[in-house]
Amino acid sequence: MDLLKKKIEEEGIVLSDHVLKVDSFINHQMDPHLMKEIGLEFARLFKEAGITRILTIESSGIAPAIMAGLALDVPVIFARKRKSLTLTSDLYTATVYSFTKRESNEITVSKKYIHPEDHVLVIDDFLANGQAALGLANIVEQAGATVSGIGILIEKSFQQGAEELIAKGYRLESLARIASLKGGKVTFAEQRIHEGIYAGGY
Amino acid sequence: MDLLKKKIEEEGIVLSDHVLKVDSFINHQMDPHLMKEIGLEFARLFKEAGITRILTIESSGIAPAIMAGLALDVPVIFARKRKSLTLTSDLYTATVYSFTKRESNEITVSKKYIHPEDHVLVIDDFLANGQAALGLANIVEQAGATVSGIGILIEKSFQQGAEELIAKGYRLESLARIASLKGGKVTFAEQRIHEGIYAGGY
Repeated sequence: MDLLKKKIEEEGIVLSDHVLKVDSFINHQMDPHLMKEIGLEFARLFKEAGITRILTIESSGIAPAIMAGLALDVPVIFARKRKSLTLTSDLYTATVYSFTKRESNEITVSKKYIHPEDHVLVIDDFLANGQAALGLANIVEQAGATVSGIGILIEKSFQQGAEELIAKGYRLESLARIASLKGGKVTFAEQRIHEGIYAGGY
Repeated sequence: MDLLKKKIEEEGIVLSDHVLKVDSFINHQMDPHLMKEIGLEFARLFKEAGITRILTIESSGIAPAIMAGLALDVPVIFARKRKSLTLTSDLYTATVYSFTKRESNEITVSKKYIHPEDHVLVIDDFLANGQAALGLANIVEQAGATVSGIGILIEKSFQQGAEELIAKGYRLESLARIASLKGGKVTFAEQRIHEGIYAGGY
């Protein structure tokens, strides 16, 4: 998605070979017009997939997910990283390890909001090691529902998450794919060949 | 705002005299169309206020705030409740005590994203004791910027937050005002008389 790539080029800050900071338009300050366009792009990509619900995770997934939910006309759920006091029973849970934060979080979703007949689009901001996406997909499957796709804003293609999700048979759509952050520079990966065939070459 | 009140009447669950659960359309599952209408309503209310930026707090404030940001054509910042690993220096911080969770959180906003010339609209989902809104307003003022308004989805008018914010001179716009949750029933408060005059009577 050109608009997102342009924004990454203009405002993304490469902190190391593995860390790209996008807190001026995604992770702290958010650009509402970019989020709207991202939502429309996910709706375009998944419009034939029969999506009935979107599942994301707090906090940076919420803005793109709500815009996609508006465009696809489906409810959006955000998984919680910490248990809520008013949301205490009948939860699906999955354990997600964050390599960045070096800690495990238990993520939770109320059983009330995902049903076996649901076709769920999982949305998240970053895909690196794939832990969050796998945790969200696991929750969908605990509910007996179908993971109809995984939509990612920024895929770090040099880490193993994308490969792992595709190997598991998930349809993965990443709006910007980064081949490398070496030398303080963002190098985008080539377009991946769909469906389920991994283009490789990076 | 009638659409929000109707949703509260239809789907809100009164857990006690003080707790209203709205996790089917705001706090866990979110209704994107409702969020869009909320964003448009905040834009209508604050369109003459010269808003340059919106500040909310993760996680439930993000969806209404991004929709308001889209409608007002301004960037949206969400304050973090936990420190980010890639967001470590040059932070404004405020301490927010949650009566519901019985804990204090330090909320943080990067100094990069609020400037002295900003006119900031603070948005949050609930207003009860006013701690979160006061913390966000405090951060805006630390930046030397102006709090041009506070936009709330659901005000629990029987707690002291609204009165305190108005006493401090803030312009408060709450889309649904709840006078009481007694007897397991939601009773809405009358319209408040603006500006800065507190209608009272509840």
